Amino acid sequence: MKFGVAGSGSWATALVKILTDNGHKVNWCLRNEASVAFIKQRHHNPKNLTAAVLNTRLLHLTTDLAALVDRSDVVILAMPSAYVAATLQVLAPDAFGNKKILSAIKGILPVENVLLNEHLERNFDVPLTNYFAVLGPCHAEEVAAEKLSYLTFSGVDEAFASRIAAHFKSSFINTVVNEDILGVQYAAVLKNIYALGAGIAHGLDYGDNFQSVYIANSADEMAGFLRKFGAEHIVVGEHDDLDHPGKKYANYSASVYLGDLLVTCYSLHSRNRTFGNMIGKGYSVQAAQLELRMVAEGYNAAKCIYNTNKSLKADMPIADTIYQILWEQLPPAKGFEKIEGFLI
Amino acid sequence: MKFGVAGSGSWATALVKILTDNGHKVNWCLRNEASVAFIKQRHHNPKNLTAAVLNTRLLHLTTDLAALVDRSDVVILAMPSAYVAATLQVLAPDAFGNKKILSAIKGILPVENVLLNEHLERNFDVPLTNYFAVLGPCHAEEVAAEKLSYLTFSGVDEAFASRIAAHFKSSFINTVVNEDILGVQYAAVLKNIYALGAGIAHGLDYGDNFQSVYIANSADEMAGFLRKFGAEHIVVGEHDDLDHPGKKYANYSASVYLGDLLVTCYSLHSRNRTFGNMIGKGYSVQAAQLELRMVAEGYNAAKCIYNTNKSLKADMPIADTIYQILWEQLPPAKGFEKIEGFLI
Repeated sequence: MKFGVAGSGSWATALVKILTDNGHKVNWCLRNEASVAFIKQRHHNPKNLTAAVLNTRLLHLTTDLAALVDRSDVVILAMPSAYVAATLQVLAPDAFGNKKILSAIKGILPVENVLLNEHLERNFDVPLTNYFAVLGPCHAEEVAAEKLSYLTFSGVDEAFASRIAAHFKSSFINTVVNEDILGVQYAAVLKNIYALGAGIAHGLDYGDNFQSVYIANSADEMAGFLRKFGAEHIVVGEHDDLDHPGKKYANYSASVYLGDLLVTCYSLHSRNRTFGNMIGKGYSVQAAQLELRMVAEGYNAAKCIYNTNKSLKADMPIADTIYQILWEQLPPAKGFEKIEGFLI
Repeated sequence: MKFGVAGSGSWATALVKILTDNGHKVNWCLRNEASVAFIKQRHHNPKNLTAAVLNTRLLHLTTDLAALVDRSDVVILAMPSAYVAATLQVLAPDAFGNKKILSAIKGILPVENVLLNEHLERNFDVPLTNYFAVLGPCHAEEVAAEKLSYLTFSGVDEAFASRIAAHFKSSFINTVVNEDILGVQYAAVLKNIYALGAGIAHGLDYGDNFQSVYIANSADEMAGFLRKFGAEHIVVGEHDDLDHPGKKYANYSASVYLGDLLVTCYSLHSRNRTFGNMIGKGYSVQAAQLELRMVAEGYNAAKCIYNTNKSLKADMPIADTIYQILWEQLPPAKGFEKIEGFLI
């Protein structure tokens, strides 16, 4: 199984480290020749996750995405969701053929407002059976430090997801396999909204007692969305869903759902929390973006989910209110007064 | 509704503050006359939660528990669970008569290994319909600082629980009402075990990624125990329980369950975490107790739940392993190697 990784960020670098530490050869497509040259010479990424020392003898570095795809059986896409569409434009419509795609992207593609699998199906004819996602609560920094982390490999072809997972299992990576491919991707989007909200609450001076109530209720709201979405889209999971006879739902306390929500909400270094904190302190969205020189994923995620939920109509008062704060100028303090009333 | 509070600790003091801030008169039974004199003169508890300024004009202070019970309609018991039996021994068997009891105790009574309601039923003939509990994620320190906190009032007599709750609702206290009186008490016990375990994991140098997986799985294990316990004991909650036809179960993501677990596991100041951290670093239970001059609640809780679960037989590999570490000399590193294998 030949792996190709596309992406230059921390998470791409962490995945390259995991695979090469396990002795697997990896094709790695970077943004520019300078990075290629730097990694060859210095054995680490020049900008991101610099602490991860990489076994360059196992790396085939390139800046040519088409060549990378061609050389690989499993193509791991690991760039920010906002750049995916532009990055993949260089590829021919039949470039992926029968290759397996492993998404390491934690977000919805903006403009189109779709998950990566839909974009790949529309533009490259990739069937869902060839599509997988690797997700879970996993700060790249802890992978670099070889702290035990759990990754969930999801796909409707659960057997192949297991085969991919086996290549990642190591002394510091445990793997879980799951077939709820759409649910896990939405969970990864939703958690960013709730973490941004946790940041707003912190900025508004709410304490730990409130945060725990807010996060517990967010977990419940997320599970409600996923259950409803799952029931309308795909039959997965081990639990019978009483509200939707004949349907199953997944265990939403598993690490890829609740665990990822917790690590994102409680991490003080998360960009979503930092961004939300500034909003809570009274910065406008524009001012916070300028100050932090980035857009937190939860900002676009709030709009994406708001739009997706127009038809799904899951009950999500928390996410709706955060959307209103970010996109409809609802003052954060007023928004959280509303949220206070929803929590149990 | 005349309230009487028995207990001198932080949590008793916080509850007195909430009630008197709302303008309610409170009878308060303290451990000794020195505390009574101090509070009268200085308007705060001499040792615990000293930051909370108390309106002494609304307080009737005493050291006579029988007199307190006699003067009150609702008796709030707010001492550590280990001292409850000894403290209540001064009362006549019919002392509580038809009074309502509000438990603010977060634990099982050791020796007998029972919840407070069982002790009160056995020794004072208090029926479950007169028994209520106030629980939820609530550091007393944040109550003193008037940070918004959520308290859940639970009782099989949900209407009276609502009436009690109304006296506590204020600008910094939101209230939730629930009828799962046994479940909420067990949740308050279980969370201490998992928080102690989170401390052990920290002591063993696991990172944030692992903690989030561990806590998410603990939430699931706790919900499994509560669901099974609820199905065998009392019909409560709004969800149909498919595994136990005709039974309902509560929403275990609510603040009194998941929220309290989160605030306890993530609080760096929690005694359970501190204690667990020392165990993880290699201290024996005895050495950790000597060093910290206290026993963390999770230590006894682990044994209580282990014994309770002998007949219930809920699937709780995490709590069982923490029990073995604390009570059966399983080395912490070996225990967590086992736990690693259970997590999803």
